[in-house]
Amino acid sequence: MSVLVVGSVALDTLTTPAGKVEDTLGGSAVYFGLAAGQLSRVRIVGVVGPDFPSVERSFLQKRNVDIEGLTIGRGPTFRWEGVYGPDFGDARTIRTELGVFASFEPVLPEEYRKTPYVFLANIDPDLQLKVFDQVENPTWIAMDTMNLWIEHKKEVVLKAIKKIDLLFVNASEARQISGSSDLFRAGRYILKRGPRFVVIKLGASGVMVLGGPQPFLLPACPVKKVIDPTGAGDSFAAGMLGFLAGVGGELTFKNITRGLCYGSVTASFAISGFGVEALRTLSKSEIDERLGFYLSTNQLDRIKE
Amino acid sequence: MSVLVVGSVALDTLTTPAGKVEDTLGGSAVYFGLAAGQLSRVRIVGVVGPDFPSVERSFLQKRNVDIEGLTIGRGPTFRWEGVYGPDFGDARTIRTELGVFASFEPVLPEEYRKTPYVFLANIDPDLQLKVFDQVENPTWIAMDTMNLWIEHKKEVVLKAIKKIDLLFVNASEARQISGSSDLFRAGRYILKRGPRFVVIKLGASGVMVLGGPQPFLLPACPVKKVIDPTGAGDSFAAGMLGFLAGVGGELTFKNITRGLCYGSVTASFAISGFGVEALRTLSKSEIDERLGFYLSTNQLDRIKE
Repeated sequence: MSVLVVGSVALDTLTTPAGKVEDTLGGSAVYFGLAAGQLSRVRIVGVVGPDFPSVERSFLQKRNVDIEGLTIGRGPTFRWEGVYGPDFGDARTIRTELGVFASFEPVLPEEYRKTPYVFLANIDPDLQLKVFDQVENPTWIAMDTMNLWIEHKKEVVLKAIKKIDLLFVNASEARQISGSSDLFRAGRYILKRGPRFVVIKLGASGVMVLGGPQPFLLPACPVKKVIDPTGAGDSFAAGMLGFLAGVGGELTFKNITRGLCYGSVTASFAISGFGVEALRTLSKSEIDERLGFYLSTNQLDRIKE
Repeated sequence: MSVLVVGSVALDTLTTPAGKVEDTLGGSAVYFGLAAGQLSRVRIVGVVGPDFPSVERSFLQKRNVDIEGLTIGRGPTFRWEGVYGPDFGDARTIRTELGVFASFEPVLPEEYRKTPYVFLANIDPDLQLKVFDQVENPTWIAMDTMNLWIEHKKEVVLKAIKKIDLLFVNASEARQISGSSDLFRAGRYILKRGPRFVVIKLGASGVMVLGGPQPFLLPACPVKKVIDPTGAGDSFAAGMLGFLAGVGGELTFKNITRGLCYGSVTASFAISGFGVEALRTLSKSEIDERLGFYLSTNQLDRIKE
């Protein structure tokens, strides 16, 4: 079964302590597509300009990503430039050229409308709302957002949150939405407003999910060397939702916690290369291999003397 | 059975984003004693000045800490003043007045010498070495150190490491000792130099232990509000080693991983109050209660649908 992602497709210029790349393939929908594509079929809804390299279009298709919903608008492809400090924390935005993305309105091709699993990547919540009217009884809808929208369009964010099943936020966004510094309280605040589960991403500190019979915490999947954190969140959502889609989509707590493990693993690949570099050749068997190692480092019950 | 700790006993002045306290009970041996004392009997070796409040001496005794080895020297008690930035990261040292600690030489009372479990808290490695000659066949010796000693006395640190069973380091210390930024490689480097296990503390990102059949990772035990990170590392070691001592001390991987859970819990209490405030009244039942919650948030295998 397929997962539908609505998000950005971009050309990124990225500077991290490990180096710099220019006009490289990026955008939330692309990170999501490449990471989830190894676990499930992915359908992208987004927009690029005529300047978007056609080689990247074919590449996405080769990687199990359906690009029928990736329209070509009039104007340049969305470009973003960011610089990461020595701690690889939040990027400082140097330049944002929206181009075709400025007038983007998500339109789902006819055959996308019945996709059972939907991920609304981080875009304007007014655009996210437009997707709800176009999907037909999806099994679940997951959603991401960011500080910008919470600050300027909180009511719209809350309106979207009301209609979804699973929300991805990082710790500061959870605090911003709820007004509470206690993450457990922040999570409960969010859960009361709609979603069945909230995944609070803690960066290098791992991830916490609330909404099940108990909170669940998972450390990050360790990487030898961080190269570029861009797309970590989208790749995390991709691993988790791609796994869920691959096992029938049921939002049980057990599936959710297993999905978190997949998310940690795909995110660990994403940050090990510039842009989507490390995701370009990622295979299911590599994911499974790292998952096996990662699981062995987490399961208290499996520890034998 | 008892755990012996050799370390500092101090009066700390602490400024954190949550406030300020002056001349409050502190020091690695005190944090260790108060946190481990609820899981096992603790014997302290350290030194204070005549200005050390006698009420604190009796308090330590009431909390299951044997202070026969806490001598009274000539001069003021060791004082340290530190300021934490908004992220509660490493403290900036404002003032260090060694006082009696400047001429401290650990001398174990006769009846301490057969203590089966030994923790060398973070002190000058030349002093740590002096303890080895005074203990008689301990079951294990664990040790902590810091960047200062690794920078200035690396050979002595390595000499001490060679004689121990378990080393506590944080990520930057592991990298500093090994010269490798890859924590797995750094851990292997350390393990080759003596200890059977190395516990790499990752702060808010949790903890990793190497030396078992596989690496083991654990997220930090979440707290509602961090007040003061002082003593987190010593309280972590205390929970872990106190647990080990309480269950017979055998350094199996299973015991080690369970011990890490206790360490995460005792550290989570320590950082929830200024100085040792939150440890003053801590009880075994509170530890067990939080442990139960914390374990439920970590065990993939226990997650039921």
